[in-house]
Amino acid sequence: MSEDPRKTLPVKQVRQFLEHALALADALRDTIAGVVAQGFEVERKADRSLVTTADREAELRFRDLAAKLTPEAGVLGEEFGHDRPGADFTWVIDPVDGTAEFAAGLPLWGTIAGLWFRGEPLVGVIDHPALALRSHAAFGLGAFANGKRLEVQDWPRDGFDGSERVGTPSRAAYVKFRDEGARFDRLCLAHRNIRVFHTCLTHSSAANGALDAALEWDAPLWDLGATRILLEEAGGRYEVIRQREQEAVGTVYCAVFGRPKLVDSLAAVLSPG
Amino acid sequence: MSEDPRKTLPVKQVRQFLEHALALADALRDTIAGVVAQGFEVERKADRSLVTTADREAELRFRDLAAKLTPEAGVLGEEFGHDRPGADFTWVIDPVDGTAEFAAGLPLWGTIAGLWFRGEPLVGVIDHPALALRSHAAFGLGAFANGKRLEVQDWPRDGFDGSERVGTPSRAAYVKFRDEGARFDRLCLAHRNIRVFHTCLTHSSAANGALDAALEWDAPLWDLGATRILLEEAGGRYEVIRQREQEAVGTVYCAVFGRPKLVDSLAAVLSPG
Repeated sequence: MSEDPRKTLPVKQVRQFLEHALALADALRDTIAGVVAQGFEVERKADRSLVTTADREAELRFRDLAAKLTPEAGVLGEEFGHDRPGADFTWVIDPVDGTAEFAAGLPLWGTIAGLWFRGEPLVGVIDHPALALRSHAAFGLGAFANGKRLEVQDWPRDGFDGSERVGTPSRAAYVKFRDEGARFDRLCLAHRNIRVFHTCLTHSSAANGALDAALEWDAPLWDLGATRILLEEAGGRYEVIRQREQEAVGTVYCAVFGRPKLVDSLAAVLSPG
Repeated sequence: MSEDPRKTLPVKQVRQFLEHALALADALRDTIAGVVAQGFEVERKADRSLVTTADREAELRFRDLAAKLTPEAGVLGEEFGHDRPGADFTWVIDPVDGTAEFAAGLPLWGTIAGLWFRGEPLVGVIDHPALALRSHAAFGLGAFANGKRLEVQDWPRDGFDGSERVGTPSRAAYVKFRDEGARFDRLCLAHRNIRVFHTCLTHSSAANGALDAALEWDAPLWDLGATRILLEEAGGRYEVIRQREQEAVGTVYCAVFGRPKLVDSLAAVLSPG
């Protein structure tokens, strides 16, 4: 088993990347606020999901600024594909995660930016500009929300009583590509106190304790670009329970994350078989 | 059939009550912000739901100020029962709707205040202080969110394709008093694109178009104190599909509200039989 490649990087460099990630998140806030102030257009893409002027302008702004701050890094984003796929460092971004919520005027959307190094997450930011809530983490440097250190505690007992709070996509996500709605039904039977926000607010909430755990179903990597580093640096568990290729989308992931015992239970409830 | 009693009230009086409702919502914002700034305590009540210092202080502040502004009105609230139950006018309030979210630091909670006249809703406010979003309505005077007039349009087609956005409680609400989890499961099969916020943000969202419809299951009247007037004044439909007495709680309601065609579909999917 090879060593974690992140351990070969000097702390000073990790800290520098974190500064860049925060500066990029600031730039996205500005760009998106500018688009909102001007009024924006909403279109439906070929896969029937939505895209707005804000998604596109923010991703272009990110790519432009990242090329200056971190010329050694590639970028993988929802709207404009994968630049420099062979690079050691890769930004994985979704400038407006929760476009449907953004377009509907619900402030639960977020900006996701994660920097990965040789397949491992190094730095991550999940920013909710409309909620004035920003979470960030960097390898070995801890996880924080609005400057306050995050610490995910394990669930205090063995077994669950229905009070545990679990963030999940709606049943729509479980039937989008395949008919796996029965997994959602099983989840709601096993852990009935769910929340469905349809944005990365469930991810930041799993990291800051507002939820006990959360999950994504058949999500592309950019939806999860900052989640693993945020959860792991906060002391939580992050587990990919399935990874597969989806035609016309690429690799999609089923991932569960949060308090370790609850992640184990979710993985057992949701796993195939 | 007797005439709607609200039509006997002068518009000037309705307008005055609306001003009082907005002043009361301002007072609740102040009180809750003060409690948050000081730090608050969370307790579990006999029914296992949560209560905080904010719930109690805000409800007492409301009762105190309402006694001055509208001495003719009774008050029905979650924490301190029903004052003057025989009065023609009754405030129905939940100062912190979504206490679990409030306690968890999620900004989705809201303040509900509705004034009812002889069993009909006259004025309503749903305020989300942490989202800077306030919706209000008064009989004959329209519905507004942050000053902008609300107009609920009907669903543009016959039939639904899964894109319709429906706010619902989690499965926990459907099994809290009776095992009616099968209703939730049916709902998710019929309308898979659900949102679960666990607060009245689903109500204000059904009024402002951020959701296409929403519902409550076995909820007490104070959770619905402002919803009917808000939806009806916006042009939407509000329907109680069941009303019954629940031991140790009182009357609980299953209500669906939003775009008329979707309300009809939800009522059909969720109704007994």
